[in-house]
Amino acid sequence: MKVLITTSSFGEEPIQILIKKGFEVINNPYKRKITQTEILPLLSGVQGVIAGLEKYNYDILSQSELKVISRCGSGLSNIDLNAAKKLKITVYNTPKGPTQSVSELTVGCLLTLIRDVPRVNNLMHAGKWEKTTGHLLKDMKVLLIGYGRIGKTVARILNAIGAKILVYDPFVTKENISRHFTKVDLTNGIKIADVITLHSSGENLILGEKEFHLMKPGVYILNVARGGLIDEDALEKALISSKVAGAWLDTFQQEPYKGKLSNIKQVILTPHIGSYTIEGRKKMELDSINNLLRGLGLTSK
Amino acid sequence: MKVLITTSSFGEEPIQILIKKGFEVINNPYKRKITQTEILPLLSGVQGVIAGLEKYNYDILSQSELKVISRCGSGLSNIDLNAAKKLKITVYNTPKGPTQSVSELTVGCLLTLIRDVPRVNNLMHAGKWEKTTGHLLKDMKVLLIGYGRIGKTVARILNAIGAKILVYDPFVTKENISRHFTKVDLTNGIKIADVITLHSSGENLILGEKEFHLMKPGVYILNVARGGLIDEDALEKALISSKVAGAWLDTFQQEPYKGKLSNIKQVILTPHIGSYTIEGRKKMELDSINNLLRGLGLTSK
Repeated sequence: MKVLITTSSFGEEPIQILIKKGFEVINNPYKRKITQTEILPLLSGVQGVIAGLEKYNYDILSQSELKVISRCGSGLSNIDLNAAKKLKITVYNTPKGPTQSVSELTVGCLLTLIRDVPRVNNLMHAGKWEKTTGHLLKDMKVLLIGYGRIGKTVARILNAIGAKILVYDPFVTKENISRHFTKVDLTNGIKIADVITLHSSGENLILGEKEFHLMKPGVYILNVARGGLIDEDALEKALISSKVAGAWLDTFQQEPYKGKLSNIKQVILTPHIGSYTIEGRKKMELDSINNLLRGLGLTSK
Repeated sequence: MKVLITTSSFGEEPIQILIKKGFEVINNPYKRKITQTEILPLLSGVQGVIAGLEKYNYDILSQSELKVISRCGSGLSNIDLNAAKKLKITVYNTPKGPTQSVSELTVGCLLTLIRDVPRVNNLMHAGKWEKTTGHLLKDMKVLLIGYGRIGKTVARILNAIGAKILVYDPFVTKENISRHFTKVDLTNGIKIADVITLHSSGENLILGEKEFHLMKPGVYILNVARGGLIDEDALEKALISSKVAGAWLDTFQQEPYKGKLSNIKQVILTPHIGSYTIEGRKKMELDSINNLLRGLGLTSK
């Protein structure tokens, strides 16, 4: 059987699993995202694909012999799921892949933000010894907006450190939240939180001018979810007026980010690397291989 | 009764507890460390002192009417404990004060160090979008050297994140270590650790040239304990050769630090701020007040 791997890079170790199973493995010859005209010739004779973000519409799927599409990643918007269903092609993704990576980065950035580490670290590297008194996370009220896989993991870790966890998620019932945490409505949560961290999956604005007005002075804001969830201009104003004590952003309305928040010292900025860890990537690749084998009716051992 | 507070600053809230109890409270009039000639006149008629780092020797103690010395802090090296015992002066300290502050900073600096956050944050502030792929803490072997209050707290949090905890502490028996952790001897621990973090209380060198040779390539080194525990020159060499992938230091052989590690990007440097949090300081002050009241035979309510 023939398997195509379309991601621009893929580890040698999981490829060997396929080869040992007797598969013929075809790698992405372009080492970049494959276009719609390039995909069909590559799919010739292929029954399973480890897929990246290239498009699979009805036209392409119906001309292929595919039985399984196994996404190495969580998003499925590049695949026409109805067409796949009609053509009896099983589709998988690896939704757990980025959870731990994103959660660890969130906790690390929060703990260093409230202690002003990036600033004093730069001062030290410039030969300046300037002590700063920060805040403890313990007993802080942390509002999580979004309580999916990532929100849950972040909540569990922050709870272990001693923070008080507030959860806002319209799709989660009280019964599905740990009894140590408090379910809140958005407005009330925003009013009482010491830290607000976004882990929701929508695309609509959540923190705009109005919400910043409601917040407690000295609040910290974190966004590792999606750039569009925060009004960046409102955040900038709130930082300049010290209403917001500090922020960490990993996602932006426009990427690569070239905006004005770069001028503000009490902001940690990272270039959308929430999911970027060697170990997290490896796990995602192995998960996608196991899904592929499962879909083809083979065990993964 | 008269109480003297000698720390250079002290919160209003805990002072009010003393005033409500009917104490006459004398504050440090110099707003800095009190010298040996200044302390005796201040102690006149005083039965309890909330003490900073000023010296209490036999000469001073025997001329005072002190019943209690309550240190606001953990170190007791400024007090002649034998003299205090002879003169029936009860001595207290607040050893728990810095535990949470130091532990939180350790976790935050470790999580951002393995993701290269300080470097990409600086690039972003310079308008440069440069992705970096870091490491997960989950499943990393973290060697804790020293398993006192701080080591225990750090271990508990890192375990919640998913790290594998190795403990070296000659003063702790296996029974006193969580069964989820592994007790190791120092040499073996150094050989297998992905992260080595110092939380011991001694003054002798622990990580020298020899120990750096034993380490796994790509190890991360953290020191929030005492500067003298690491050979800074050996660390510098190991960083330059990439044997050590990164380091965080909060304590140094000489402070304020002016050494060569400031030239190395993959090092986070902080100016001995492990215990510096507003909330941690407040807790220490309240603890010292409660100890004072206890020592004078009064409850703290």
